[in-house]
Amino acid sequence: MVSLERPIKFEDVDAASIVFFARFLNYAHEAMERFFAPLEGGYAALILGRRIGLPAVRVEAEYSAPVRYGETLRIETSVVHLGRRSATFRYRMVRAHDGVLSAELRHTVVTTDLEQLASTPMPEDVRALLSAHLEPEQAPASAGRRA
Amino acid sequence: MVSLERPIKFEDVDAASIVFFARFLNYAHEAMERFFAPLEGGYAALILGRRIGLPAVRVEAEYSAPVRYGETLRIETSVVHLGRRSATFRYRMVRAHDGVLSAELRHTVVTTDLEQLASTPMPEDVRALLSAHLEPEQAPASAGRRA
Amino acid sequence: MVSLERPIKFEDVDAASIVFFARFLNYAHEAMERFFAPLEGGYAALILGRRIGLPAVRVEAEYSAPVRYGETLRIETSVVHLGRRSATFRYRMVRAHDGVLSAELRHTVVTTDLEQLASTPMPEDVRALLSAHLEPEQAPASAGRRA
Amino acid sequence: MVSLERPIKFEDVDAASIVFFARFLNYAHEAMERFFAPLEGGYAALILGRRIGLPAVRVEAEYSAPVRYGETLRIETSVVHLGRRSATFRYRMVRAHDGVLSAELRHTVVTTDLEQLASTPMPEDVRALLSAHLEPEQAPASAGRRA
Repeated sequence: MVSLERPIKFEDVDAASIVFFARFLNYAHEAMERFFAPLEGGYAALILGRRIGLPAVRVEAEYSAPVRYGETLRIETSVVHLGRRSATFRYRMVRAHDGVLSAELRHTVVTTDLEQLASTPMPEDVRALLSAHLEPEQAPASAGRRA
Repeated sequence: MVSLERPIKFEDVDAASIVFFARFLNYAHEAMERFFAPLEGGYAALILGRRIGLPAVRVEAEYSAPVRYGETLRIETSVVHLGRRSATFRYRMVRAHDGVLSAELRHTVVTTDLEQLASTPMPEDVRALLSAHLEPEQAPASAGRRA
Repeated sequence: MVSLERPIKFEDVDAASIVFFARFLNYAHEAMERFFAPLEGGYAALILGRRIGLPAVRVEAEYSAPVRYGETLRIETSVVHLGRRSATFRYRMVRAHDGVLSAELRHTVVTTDLEQLASTPMPEDVRALLSAHLEPEQAPASAGRRA
Repeated sequence: MVSLERPIKFEDVDAASIVFFARFLNYAHEAMERFFAPLEGGYAALILGRRIGLPAVRVEAEYSAPVRYGETLRIETSVVHLGRRSATFRYRMVRAHDGVLSAELRHTVVTTDLEQLASTPMPEDVRALLSAHLEPEQAPASAGRRA
């Protein structure tokens, strides 16, 4: 599990004064960039140098408690599924000040050749990093869906 | 079904030169604002005047084809579930130039008193509008999940 | 002068419940994209096809009245300076409901070869469009600066 | 002078693959939030608790070198003018990897009662912090403008 503290920015909230629901995906991506920081050159070198990216094919987000400006989210990133060319991240986003879960996301990505925009075998260093944080989930809520 | 043509903006793409995955939720919200335009004062009056909002409790997004700057998405919004205080929107986002489905989202919202941040009965005009575009989905893929 | 009506979106406001100051530059870019719509393929073809862009070298923004969610800005775009490889746009952003000027921006861009990221001669169709909307400014406030 | 290291995020670039010009204002605001971190409760408490904000009345930005994904900006924030109810920040944004100045912004704000949206006397703790980082500028480029 890789952890990231993410303070809410002034512009992250919407006209209802809580963090806009789309921004949790921006936070997820920031957490994924942090996750891949140990790669040589980080995620940027993967994208810009090796021209391999990890576009999303599926996202599920459950929102359970609002977050406001001035608060901080602690984002715990782990890998709940690792396939040949795909992986699913789980991000648990917890309010730092009271430990309440604000949102939980699952984000499935496919290793992709950005020149061709076609899937490509997962590079070994990417796989190694994903494996190191693999925490497969048990059946419960997700069971019907994965069967 | 309510339709919205949404040209991709210069800033909507990311470092992989395709529309950033989080932006599809921004598009979804724009489509929802358009959906509620027939309300008196639109969605803004609901939020700012009546202080009732529709925060997300769940989002599912399936991404099937990338979109680029210079292209336009046609967003078809309908309601696939209508509960007492909740509703689920479906947004089919189709590339206007070739008719290819780029993304499909399901977005469940709860009518919420923005002062208390607690759920509140669904106002009648909101319900009427949702009902007018209700297109319940058959079982298939979603079956296990809803059971 | 080219005009664009731009409704304020739910996510455009900040924690002070008014449109975030940076967003006016996003609006300016949208207005510039609209300005160049008459080009063949629009601004996107210029960028992606011909690989010529118009990066900013200078922006000045004066903010005179706040705008809120639910309001609409009318953005009036004109060209106040046209050089060999540069141009300065002026955007007057007026609240549609009361005619009050909310912000006025000046935005100087340079025609740029995006492969080399070096300035390049201004294409003739770009120049023609800029010329058609050229409204040079008189001296007043800007005098000392431009002398 | 207060310094902030700001890595460029995946989504910060635009269709020309360089950081979008509007985002430098987002960075400036982040730097201002960092600047005010020593206030009790930070900038958020000022906004949400005391209901005093610092809306922009003027911004000037000079863009001198592009920044890309994978790079980091070092943002040096200082105060170049301090008035009774206003202050002007200067942000020098330097590319961390080569020390090249990417952008320089001046950002004038007015202490504002957010309930009334009217200017209000500057709180003493805000003034003290601004004074501590006051570095008035000499005449040159700005001369004509300020006369």
